This record gives sequence, structure tokens and C-alpha cells, in this order.
Amino acid sequence: MDVKLSVTPYKGTRDFYPRDMKLRNWFFGNIRKALEQSCFEEYEGPMLESLDLYAAKSGEELAKEQTYNFTDRGGRDLAIRPEMTPTVARMVAGKMGELNYPLKWFSIANMYRYERPQRGRLREFWQLNVDIFGCDTFEADLDVLQSAIAVLRSYGADESMFKVHINNRRFFNDVIAAIAGTDAEGSKKISKVVDRKNKINREAYENAMEELGLSEEQIEKIDALYTMGVKEATALCPDSDGAKELTALFDALEKTGLIKYCMFDFGIIRGLDYYTGTVFEVFDLAPENNRAMFGGGRYDNLVGLFVKNAKISGVGYGMGDVTLENFLVTHNLVPDLDNEGTKVLVTRFDDVPYEKYTALVDELRGAGLTASLYLGSKKFGKQIDYAVKGNYSHVVIMGGSELEGGIVKIKNLNTREESAVALTELAAFFG
Amino acid sequence: MDVKLSVTPYKGTRDFYPRDMKLRNWFFGNIRKALEQSCFEEYEGPMLESLDLYAAKSGEELAKEQTYNFTDRGGRDLAIRPEMTPTVARMVAGKMGELNYPLKWFSIANMYRYERPQRGRLREFWQLNVDIFGCDTFEADLDVLQSAIAVLRSYGADESMFKVHINNRRFFNDVIAAIAGTDAEGSKKISKVVDRKNKINREAYENAMEELGLSEEQIEKIDALYTMGVKEATALCPDSDGAKELTALFDALEKTGLIKYCMFDFGIIRGLDYYTGTVFEVFDLAPENNRAMFGGGRYDNLVGLFVKNAKISGVGYGMGDVTLENFLVTHNLVPDLDNEGTKVLVTRFDDVPYEKYTALVDELRGAGLTASLYLGSKKFGKQIDYAVKGNYSHVVIMGGSELEGGIVKIKNLNTREESAVALTELAAFFG
Repeated sequence: MDVKLSVTPYKGTRDFYPRDMKLRNWFFGNIRKALEQSCFEEYEGPMLESLDLYAAKSGEELAKEQTYNFTDRGGRDLAIRPEMTPTVARMVAGKMGELNYPLKWFSIANMYRYERPQRGRLREFWQLNVDIFGCDTFEADLDVLQSAIAVLRSYGADESMFKVHINNRRFFNDVIAAIAGTDAEGSKKISKVVDRKNKINREAYENAMEELGLSEEQIEKIDALYTMGVKEATALCPDSDGAKELTALFDALEKTGLIKYCMFDFGIIRGLDYYTGTVFEVFDLAPENNRAMFGGGRYDNLVGLFVKNAKISGVGYGMGDVTLENFLVTHNLVPDLDNEGTKVLVTRFDDVPYEKYTALVDELRGAGLTASLYLGSKKFGKQIDYAVKGNYSHVVIMGGSELEGGIVKIKNLNTREESAVALTELAAFFG
Repeated sequence: MDVKLSVTPYKGTRDFYPRDMKLRNWFFGNIRKALEQSCFEEYEGPMLESLDLYAAKSGEELAKEQTYNFTDRGGRDLAIRPEMTPTVARMVAGKMGELNYPLKWFSIANMYRYERPQRGRLREFWQLNVDIFGCDTFEADLDVLQSAIAVLRSYGADESMFKVHINNRRFFNDVIAAIAGTDAEGSKKISKVVDRKNKINREAYENAMEELGLSEEQIEKIDALYTMGVKEATALCPDSDGAKELTALFDALEKTGLIKYCMFDFGIIRGLDYYTGTVFEVFDLAPENNRAMFGGGRYDNLVGLFVKNAKISGVGYGMGDVTLENFLVTHNLVPDLDNEGTKVLVTRFDDVPYEKYTALVDELRGAGLTASLYLGSKKFGKQIDYAVKGNYSHVVIMGGSELEGGIVKIKNLNTREESAVALTELAAFFG
């Protein structure tokens, strides 16, 4: 072959070189720690799933359009997973009778969506999914919100940096019914307009509302809701189950002190039809990045796609790695990952038997240190360059004369200090 | 939709429920720790790559047969990666001029191969890939072997459980040329027969050798090699570069004490054509599982697929998660992962305000403990069942009377001991 292959990764995907990977491991490590401390358990499913799963949730056309899908040689229509929710619903359904409810589950996994790559949207991305299954009441909603806040706080983010906007689908339907006299279908149509409110101008919004038969007065009544607090809003239809859910949740947010991270926002819909109760979106408060970073909510019927009459409700959210990274960078919350603590390179001279060096490295590793021998036999200066470029903190130098004297020289690459240390004191020096 | 979706994952793939995931995280955590301590750096690439990458390495027909591949809407032929090597070669080529050689890189990632699922072979599997780029001499081979041994030892495996069988492609070609007078092409054909030796019977082996023009005497000379030690074997063509490489490597294995894990084995070929020097396979020594678990070797030309006249050699190996799990289970090296240390469930009664419980949980977490509040309002017995089934080590009990007295009861679920602890002493109790 004479034509050379391209070194560029496929459009919308990323190569994670060690520096990028270190960042990714730091992101995900923080999340794992925060969630496991709250007794969430990690799971994962396969990258390939039956296309049916997405078609059942979003319709076949949309599923085919948004996923990488193909037919295998056995005639099975498959898709690379574009999201985790259908997989986790399938897994819960698969062991429905044996699982220990309420389940507190999370997953950190890569997904593929077939879309035009743009800022914050790639074709391959990683996503945190957090869900609680099998608790129908506000406690699970609160715990899920608490976990999202805990994840962001684990990076050092505080209430000046993000805000959780909360609404309730059931409340939305009831209050819209009270204002506009609509049935479920009518409320749903109005919810689609509200969902697009920030993407269209005022005129288009009013036109869309009028097309659905709303009067100027009704539109104004809905307008008022956008700036209401939760008490004022729920007072509009106090007997609504959704209003009661909102009240219970905000009462708990208030009493647990989480309210400082949260607010009621009637404009929060979440596009997907399967949400049934609480819905929320987490906003970045940085003026230059002010937008919803991620969100979620309560969905009662997904396990029912797999098991007849299944009554296992879920509440959860998904958070993409690109959005999270943008947020952390914007707020200066990414630490210097190049400084890795003690990392020792043992340099090598040709006049010392090789096994003297490997024994030295073994000893350092045995003492719990991160250490490597320079591989090859380049000049000393090159070996030092390698150590500096590779973010080693120390080099250990043992030439023929040091070996004879039973010592090594240790150079701290940050402070430039050099010490002569007896071979027998090597591990203790770093201790 | 009335027809319910299947709960079974796609053929040859696995669901990782929390228990499975905990095992996977333990597997991979051990590997990360062992390799990072030896200054290997983690990387990853995308799941989707251009089909060209695999076609260039293995031929288009084989690449299409063995991968999940399809054409995207832009007409690009893509494959879900069946292995990591082409990706890592692409990544090295992509930043060839800026990387810090020798690179010590590893990756733990999932792959897809289109094959019939069977024991040890799934369609989706995870694979550890370890490679050193940019060091042409025995030091890198030794370091790579050392890392494989270190990974297995990190699980508690010792020399009674596995053995690394080592050969050298260059030596193979030279000694076959000396015995049979073959050119490079002829040696390659013979290598294919040797590679299949353990899969065919003696008669088929001899017939295949004879078909390649080998005499009975020549076949016998090759037979003798299978039982030779490295000194005896290399003495057959001492001037061969391959013999010199083998001698340098075994000399270092001897002096560094790694020899107890290793042996020379002329029957080790590794099917793939791209290996150029050292090749090795790691065998499970358990009688019931005696077979090659994984292997690798030196390949000099892969970066050259991307960059003209690139001279960056690599040496490495890939280890599948299924094989590793079989090995660890066979040798009883998987610890009891259900025992997770301290994990506290705070139980809940309706006569205590909710925020008293969330504050308790916050306090426990603030003290670094893993803790959760029971979500919902089931009977006390159900909450205890939940704690037992969920592998919680302790439950904290605070009813109305405890709250009034400023205490909680703590029940250790392993010892059944119950203690009354002042609220102010809660964190200290677990400390």
C-alpha cells in the first residue's frame, strides 16, 4: 500500500491521548467517588442494542435518523446506543423480581448520536446516567437532585456557579388545563411550545400559542407563571397531584438546605414525552456560558416496554462529559493534572549491569512508589529531557562510581536539588 | 405497542449488573494501579474507526468478515473497533513529532468482533492493551513482559499458575532457513504450519510440512527445537540477529529473576504477519484450563501505515477480560466483593422530620463514610431486609424516642451487635 491512511479520528469522535485520558479519569473518578459514597451502584450494558429499544421509545423514524444503525448477518436491526435509558430499563425488566428496591444505579458510558458535530455536541460522547427505580415519592426525587448537586460540588462548584431549575409535568398539565381548559393532548401541544420558548422569539411564541386556540388573556396567565415562585404557582391549582408533589419536594429542599442550589421554573419541560412528574435542568450561571447543562426527571412507564403491567417508576438524569468539561473549565475547577506527585525515573549508564537498575526500580515500586527505568541507552542529557517532558518528579542517577560507593544521586526536577543517598536509604528518602 | 420488547442483551454481549460491574471495576482497577506504578500512561480512542485501518492491516475481506462494519450517510466505510492496535498506531502517527519516546501506553477498552460466541470468546469484550513505542532493543521487550507479569501478580497469581512462552520471529526465520534452506516466503509458510501444530494431529502436521518440501530429516530437526532451551536453540544459528535478541532478552530475564515466570518455546508464532521480533504467549498452568490466555510481541512497521518512512517500533500485548476472569476464577483469586467495608443505611420512621434524617446522612458522608437514607416509607422490617440484601454493614435507627434522647441505635449487620450512640458521637463511632 502506497497511499497512506489518515491519522484523523472519525468525524465527531475524539482521541484521548494520555493527558486527555488523565482528565477523563479525573472527571469520572470524582463522580464515582461522590455517587458510591451515597450508595449508588455502577452498572453498564452493551454498546450494541436492538434498534427496537429506541424505536419503541422515540418512534422508528427518529431512532433511525439519530442513531448509527445497521442490520447484522442474522437480519437483526441493531443500533449503537445513543442513550442509556432504554438499556437500563431493559436491565431492570430482565431481573425485575430479584432486584433490591429502591435501586440506586449509575453508569458512565460512551454513546453515539448521528448528528452534526458542534460545540458541546459530538458524535461520540460519554454520559453519566443516574437513576433511582422503585420509589414513587419525593424522597427519590430529592435524592437524585442531591446526587447531581453532590457531583458538581465534588469538583468544588458552589451555588454561585450552577442552579437547578425544577418543574413538574403533572402540575404543568393541571395548571394549563385550569387556565386553558385543555385535555391531556392539548396540554402536551402547549408544552411543546413552552419547551421551545427560549429558542424562538416572542412573536413566534405568541403565534404558536394562538394557533393552539389560546386567548391573549390565557397567554398572559401562562406568562405570569414563568416568574412565579413555587408557592404562588401551586396555589393556582392546589388540589393537583403535581402541585402536591412540587410542594413536598420544595418543602424537603427547603428543610434540607438544598434550596440554595434550586429554584422553581415553569419553563422547564424536557422535550421527551416519557417524563411524568418532576423534571429539572441544571444551568451554568457563568454569564458567558449561561445555559442548561443537563437534566432529567421522573418517568413511570419505561420498564413497562418490556414487562406487561410492570409498575416500576424511575427518576434520574444524564450528564454529558463535554458539557461537564465546559462547565469546569469556565469556572476554573480543573486542577493541574501534570503535577502527579512523586514519579521517579531511574537513568541508566552502560557501565552498570542492567539488573542493578531493574533491582533499584523493583525496590522503589515495592515501597509503593511510581517508578520506571529509562528504556534504551541514550545519552544522559536525553534521559533527563525524557524525565522532564514526562512529568517525572525525580531522577535517580547511579553510574559506575556511585554503584561502587553504594550510593545513588537523586535529583528533584521541581526544586533542582540534588542529594546523595545510600542505596540502603533509598525507599526511606522518598518515604 | 402491545408486543413487549426482549429483555435479553444482543447475542454475544453482556449486561453488567452492579455485582458484575464491581468485579469489572476491581479487575481494571488492579490493572490501572499496577501499570501506572510502572509509569505506563492510559489512552483511549473512538469505538468507530475507518474500515481502512483494519483492511490495511488484515486485508479488506478479513476486515469485513470479522468486524461490525457499515457505511455512514456520508459514504464513509466504518467499523466498530475489533482491536486497539490500529487505533494506537494511528494516534502515535498523528502526533509522531511531539511525543516523548519511549512511550509506555496502555488502554482498557471494549471491542466488537463478529464471531460465533463461545467459551472465552464474546462479540463484545474488554481488552487491556499495553505497548511501548520507540525503543528497538531488549529493554522494551523486557519491560513489556515485566508489566504482564506484574499485572497477573497484582491479583496474587504466582509462578505456579502461569508461564510466559517466548520466541522470536527473526530467529524463527533464520533457523528455519538454516535447516530447510528456505527464503523469507518459505519460512513464513512453515511458520503457518508451526502455528497450527497444537490444533492438528501429527499426521496432518507432517503432511503439511512435506507439502512445503521438507524432508523427514528436516522435520525431525525442527521437532528437536520444540523441546530445546534458549541456549541450545540459539546455538544453531548464533550469528542470527534474532538469536542475539533472544540471548539478550533471556540474559536479562535470568539476571532480573523474571526467568521463573518464563520459558523459550519455539512453537510460539502468533498468527499475525506484522510481528517482527520477540513474540510471546502467556499460558494458564491449571491442568483444567491449560492454554494460552493472551500474548503479544514486537512489530516494527505499523506506524508506517500512516506516515511514510516512519521508523517507530512497538512491542506490546492485548489481554481480554473474559480470559482473565476465567484465569482468576480457576485459581481462586477473586476476593469476596460483597464485603464492602462500612456502608450505612439510615432507616426512617414517619414520626421524625425528614430533614433530621438527611442531616444524619450528611454528617456520615461528611465524615467520609458511605451512607444512604432509606428512600420511601416502608415498614422497619422491610428497611432492614433492604439493608441486608444491599450489603450494608450497619443500620442507624432513630425513632421519635431516640431523637428526643439525642441518641441513635446502630446495628452491625454482620455481628448483630446493637449500640446506643449519642448523636454527637456518631462519626466517632465509625471512626
